[in-house]
Amino acid sequence: MSDSRDTAGQGRDLIDAPNASDTSRLETFADAVIAIAITLLILEIDVPHVEPGASLGRALGEQWPSYAGYLVSFLTIGVIWVNHHHMFTLIERSTHNFLVLNVVFLMTIAAIPWPTALLAEYVRDEGWNRVVATLVYGGTMTAVAIMFNVVWRYAAGKRHLLRDDVDMVSVERVTRSYVLGPVVYGTATLLALWNPWVSLVIFALLALYYTLPSSGPRVRLVRSR
Amino acid sequence: MSDSRDTAGQGRDLIDAPNASDTSRLETFADAVIAIAITLLILEIDVPHVEPGASLGRALGEQWPSYAGYLVSFLTIGVIWVNHHHMFTLIERSTHNFLVLNVVFLMTIAAIPWPTALLAEYVRDEGWNRVVATLVYGGTMTAVAIMFNVVWRYAAGKRHLLRDDVDMVSVERVTRSYVLGPVVYGTATLLALWNPWVSLVIFALLALYYTLPSSGPRVRLVRSR
Amino acid sequence: MSDSRDTAGQGRDLIDAPNASDTSRLETFADAVIAIAITLLILEIDVPHVEPGASLGRALGEQWPSYAGYLVSFLTIGVIWVNHHHMFTLIERSTHNFLVLNVVFLMTIAAIPWPTALLAEYVRDEGWNRVVATLVYGGTMTAVAIMFNVVWRYAAGKRHLLRDDVDMVSVERVTRSYVLGPVVYGTATLLALWNPWVSLVIFALLALYYTLPSSGPRVRLVRSR
Amino acid sequence: MSDSRDTAGQGRDLIDAPNASDTSRLETFADAVIAIAITLLILEIDVPHVEPGASLGRALGEQWPSYAGYLVSFLTIGVIWVNHHHMFTLIERSTHNFLVLNVVFLMTIAAIPWPTALLAEYVRDEGWNRVVATLVYGGTMTAVAIMFNVVWRYAAGKRHLLRDDVDMVSVERVTRSYVLGPVVYGTATLLALWNPWVSLVIFALLALYYTLPSSGPRVRLVRSR
Repeated sequence: MSDSRDTAGQGRDLIDAPNASDTSRLETFADAVIAIAITLLILEIDVPHVEPGASLGRALGEQWPSYAGYLVSFLTIGVIWVNHHHMFTLIERSTHNFLVLNVVFLMTIAAIPWPTALLAEYVRDEGWNRVVATLVYGGTMTAVAIMFNVVWRYAAGKRHLLRDDVDMVSVERVTRSYVLGPVVYGTATLLALWNPWVSLVIFALLALYYTLPSSGPRVRLVRSR
Repeated sequence: MSDSRDTAGQGRDLIDAPNASDTSRLETFADAVIAIAITLLILEIDVPHVEPGASLGRALGEQWPSYAGYLVSFLTIGVIWVNHHHMFTLIERSTHNFLVLNVVFLMTIAAIPWPTALLAEYVRDEGWNRVVATLVYGGTMTAVAIMFNVVWRYAAGKRHLLRDDVDMVSVERVTRSYVLGPVVYGTATLLALWNPWVSLVIFALLALYYTLPSSGPRVRLVRSR
Repeated sequence: MSDSRDTAGQGRDLIDAPNASDTSRLETFADAVIAIAITLLILEIDVPHVEPGASLGRALGEQWPSYAGYLVSFLTIGVIWVNHHHMFTLIERSTHNFLVLNVVFLMTIAAIPWPTALLAEYVRDEGWNRVVATLVYGGTMTAVAIMFNVVWRYAAGKRHLLRDDVDMVSVERVTRSYVLGPVVYGTATLLALWNPWVSLVIFALLALYYTLPSSGPRVRLVRSR
Repeated sequence: MSDSRDTAGQGRDLIDAPNASDTSRLETFADAVIAIAITLLILEIDVPHVEPGASLGRALGEQWPSYAGYLVSFLTIGVIWVNHHHMFTLIERSTHNFLVLNVVFLMTIAAIPWPTALLAEYVRDEGWNRVVATLVYGGTMTAVAIMFNVVWRYAAGKRHLLRDDVDMVSVERVTRSYVLGPVVYGTATLLALWNPWVSLVIFALLALYYTLPSSGPRVRLVRSR
């Protein structure tokens, strides 16, 4: 990892430790935060309390928005993890700023259980409250997608942190394709002002879409052999 | 890990990074989700609030279904982890689809604290509500067992992701033995329609059974020396 | 790690994969469960709700058992982790049974937030309820200490999983010293029947005692040079 | 890592295993606790329950202290992690005492979700309760900053655990700069007795300040080539 430096010259040299650090601890931390956020989703589903004689089956059925929220948010966080995983197979260096950007990215992901519970509570509410809850949920997802782009662009940008053997043509194709995320999530969120159900169906379809292997271009590695 | 590729030829080659990735980060993520789900189980046990003068001992005793649920669900998630651990000593490659299947598998495991709390709340409820709670608990366990099979079959199947030195005869024996999981859990779940206590005793016995070292065939490695 | 096997002979050999596995994933899983249990302790401290005009300071002061419980339980789980950490620098092999024993050990640790909250709720309760809460708390700690011994004895016993270079004399000394844990915790727990405050002071002193570097003999490694 | 010992002599040697251990498992444990504490912050934000017909938007707006608390505490824990990460790129040895000091450090970090929720609940409370909540929040942050210094000073001190190639001049500069943390947080906390809003603005600015790459001197490595 640091072999390239050994060829630079002779003598005593002071280097900044953090710039030389690799990304493994960042990946561990990000994985832990994503894993906790995804697992906390279940705490937002209540155990219904029914009177003796009343039907638990019916009470469970009335909670369907909680299950739908669990499914969609779990799958969404899951595919974010898969893509984050992919991204970090390509990144091998880290800087102070890059760590801070990742912290802000994780701040948006860690927030997801809250809008999920909010949406489950208000999705059956006629009128404006349903719209508000959908806007908050979609706004959070849009923020996640924006920060995902920010992290990637910082890593792939001028002061790039990528492996030396990545194919830059495919990097640029991936950078362009990632822009779609915030655009689609942002548009779907704004559609809630017209009809929140349309937004919610799009959020569910997006989670499913990103599980497809063909859901976007992949960065390729150049191997000279 | 990638030595086999180096023998393939000369020249510039573009390869898909995710297919080349190893499974260590997937294992870390799965371990984290399983560890969180297993530790969140304790949050489902309430601290009873008794009036001054009333007996805490009695109130704690009446909570026995919560302790039983903690024991059985903890042990069940624990043995799933042990088997997942065993499975991944044999898997050395990963693909986008495999990551997504693991996310769905983890979705079923992360859900376990909720049906555990539901069952603890309604197991003493005479009549249909107890049956419903048992069906939900057993259904979740059956879903876990099904996804465990799906993950294993994908890894061991045609596009196989296993180490080159696994003994394929034992792989097939293991594949067949894993089918028992969903069948037994599914059957035990349906028995709740007749008598939920029978289902619950079977769930407890299954958790204990899988702690036995002889609880199933193991994949063997071929070592040519 | 498997060098010893290479000297055994020639030809095709089938080996059990799990026996050959190292302990790193077990350590990761145990660390995750211990880390989650220790961090969940804070969720058991309530934010007091005081009426407008009433004193938050007084309400916070009345919650002192929660803070004491947080301190003692955090420190106790922390020193368990330190000792577990020490133990696993000496263990390099794993078996199915050893994984299962560790799951049971983790089951006792993951339970700690619940008796901690129970004790904080009832420690000011005059009479029997305080005794009951102390017995449950001490009983959990005793169970942790017993399982710690079981895990260590299994690893250090006949089918031993330790590194080849451990000094067996110091191993035996450590095995004997670990027996003190369950004895002291068990005795302190039973003293609650006479006076729960005595038990609680002992639990606090034990947590502090184990933070001392001289709190017990350490296994030494033999280095032949 | 242990090469220095091989030069010491010949024959049988007993060494203490824990002193020889590296820091990777400590880093994993610390990362896990920090990751859990940072992710639990979201559980402190309630889903507001509004009557049918009442405005969810207004109820969400009234919860702004919870969002501000989430932002500031998340960023603060995040920059603590970044600095802890940096610190451990320089530490390569561990001792029993160092592990215990880290446990106490983690005890202060794991507590952060509670004063965050407390502050969000009482920040709009006119009068003394707002002051009390600010003192508790600032006191916790001061304790974190003090323990960060204790951990670093122990590692960089006489029995030092640092890599051999750190530049001791920059180590001393960093040690001096870290002292600012407890001083600034402690002073800001005490200012709450005069005006809690001033304290809160300082806490927010500090979190932002530490995200800057120039927020303090960095330890440099000496490379003799």
